[in-house]
Amino acid sequence: MIYPSQDEIVAAAQRIAFGTHRTPVLQSAFFNSRFETNLFFKCENFQKAGAFKSRGAVNAVFSLDDDDADKGVATHSSGNHAQALARAAALRKIPAYIVMPENAPRVKVDAVKGYGGIITFCKPTLEARESTLRKILVKTGAVEIHPYDNLKVIEGQATAAMELLEQQPGLDIILCPVGGGGLLSGTALAAHYFSATTRVLACEPAGADDAYQSFKSGKLVPSVRPTTIADGLLTSLGKITFPIIRKFVDDIVTVREESIVEAMRLIFERMKIVVEPSAAVPLAAVLEKKLDVKGKKTGVILSGGNVDFNHLPWQ
Amino acid sequence: MIYPSQDEIVAAAQRIAFGTHRTPVLQSAFFNSRFETNLFFKCENFQKAGAFKSRGAVNAVFSLDDDDADKGVATHSSGNHAQALARAAALRKIPAYIVMPENAPRVKVDAVKGYGGIITFCKPTLEARESTLRKILVKTGAVEIHPYDNLKVIEGQATAAMELLEQQPGLDIILCPVGGGGLLSGTALAAHYFSATTRVLACEPAGADDAYQSFKSGKLVPSVRPTTIADGLLTSLGKITFPIIRKFVDDIVTVREESIVEAMRLIFERMKIVVEPSAAVPLAAVLEKKLDVKGKKTGVILSGGNVDFNHLPWQ
Repeated sequence: MIYPSQDEIVAAAQRIAFGTHRTPVLQSAFFNSRFETNLFFKCENFQKAGAFKSRGAVNAVFSLDDDDADKGVATHSSGNHAQALARAAALRKIPAYIVMPENAPRVKVDAVKGYGGIITFCKPTLEARESTLRKILVKTGAVEIHPYDNLKVIEGQATAAMELLEQQPGLDIILCPVGGGGLLSGTALAAHYFSATTRVLACEPAGADDAYQSFKSGKLVPSVRPTTIADGLLTSLGKITFPIIRKFVDDIVTVREESIVEAMRLIFERMKIVVEPSAAVPLAAVLEKKLDVKGKKTGVILSGGNVDFNHLPWQ
Repeated sequence: MIYPSQDEIVAAAQRIAFGTHRTPVLQSAFFNSRFETNLFFKCENFQKAGAFKSRGAVNAVFSLDDDDADKGVATHSSGNHAQALARAAALRKIPAYIVMPENAPRVKVDAVKGYGGIITFCKPTLEARESTLRKILVKTGAVEIHPYDNLKVIEGQATAAMELLEQQPGLDIILCPVGGGGLLSGTALAAHYFSATTRVLACEPAGADDAYQSFKSGKLVPSVRPTTIADGLLTSLGKITFPIIRKFVDDIVTVREESIVEAMRLIFERMKIVVEPSAAVPLAAVLEKKLDVKGKKTGVILSGGNVDFNHLPWQ
């Protein structure tokens, strides 16, 4: 297995500092009282482009040497990675080729365009996305930046928990959502290197529980027809992220859809901040009492805040 | 005319520090680029009980001597003042008698109850509210804490702009919504005492433009049948707030309802924070180009974040 070293994560933090936010850590007296714990929310919803994905994207783009970078970067994504990569490429003044399914939400297409991304639409299947991306890579010579199964991306995502542990030392637990595992593997590595007694627990929608299945069985189980409103957590673990998660993550729990909706709404109402459904999954696990956080200092990574306000899930 | 002195506002800030948040000041690269300005948002939506009202309520409740305080405090309000006063009274462990119209939204009734307020319902008319309150004052000996026409309340509200000017010195302008004028008169006094070159501009819904009419005519024009989604700004200026506003506020502008909705949605989408319609009124004035903020350092008081998520105004 391969995974980033402590020095590489420290270097990533320095590399991305110019183009990402050091996001704040917020607390909620209401949540602390209700759950008899101390929750420290790392607000990646306030991150550039609205999600932690900017960390990995900026680190990957600015780790390229000039010859590689000149030809641009490429990925297929309909989510936050697409926006983050387009923005990171714009910072380096190189092209970003983004393959998006033709049914991608208008708001996401507009966001990628807003950052200057060059979009190619394709049929909404994984095969079409991959074959379209391959053609673009051949034609342009661009470098593929995978949304999570990429060491430079993982290094970047690790900086969120590294910062959290600087801002709030001595955490007993960090809770993290898991989709493809880029954020989770980075978080687990950050805890391993910078706060060895901190346990990292992953939270996943029961309707997209491939990481849970993989973790419990020890075999990489792909995500097949996942159904969840947490649209950032639909993907399967990767060949790089899965071994890191097996080695460094302490446990994975699953949560119901209604708990995700309730947690998301509670964060809006009580903390007065906007989070996307994926970011509410860890608090959903606390609501379901799937985790023992009582009396513990518990970090929570609020992964992003890109919400379609025409379709809030409680309506 | 009577108004708080500089020393009284400084004393209020010290008095309320234990029971209120020093709220953060946020910026938005998107807004700064779009409006060619520097906007500094004072986030009273993150304040205790979700609005700046906690400042005035805590200051008023903790300014009472023990004999007065023992009998409790009372007000009629269906809004943020009711919650803030109930919470402030709970901090002092005295009763808070809150008169609310029988058609008050369930969420607001629950919030007042949640802070331990003793609610008396009445018919939804100003006459019924006032007569019900008078009966309670006679019966209980409680002290009335008016939501804005009260010097201790104004002192407390002034601490928001005082803090903003400490956190971001040298502002050219502060933008502030106006309803009854408690926040606005406090903001204008804070600028007068702590940053004499800072202009204070008030922003008001065109559908509830009594402050605009009063300011322009020089006579206190009451608010008659106001219609606006900015439900915190329906009230008339008071006998104490109007003279302060005439003397210390530089100008008042009005905005359209659709601009308030657009501004509120933009704050949600771009800043990832929750604000109530009243808090979006100053940004609405910027959107309408009613104010010249180009190249200026402009403070914006985001007055509160108590939103009914079942009825977002753009839906």
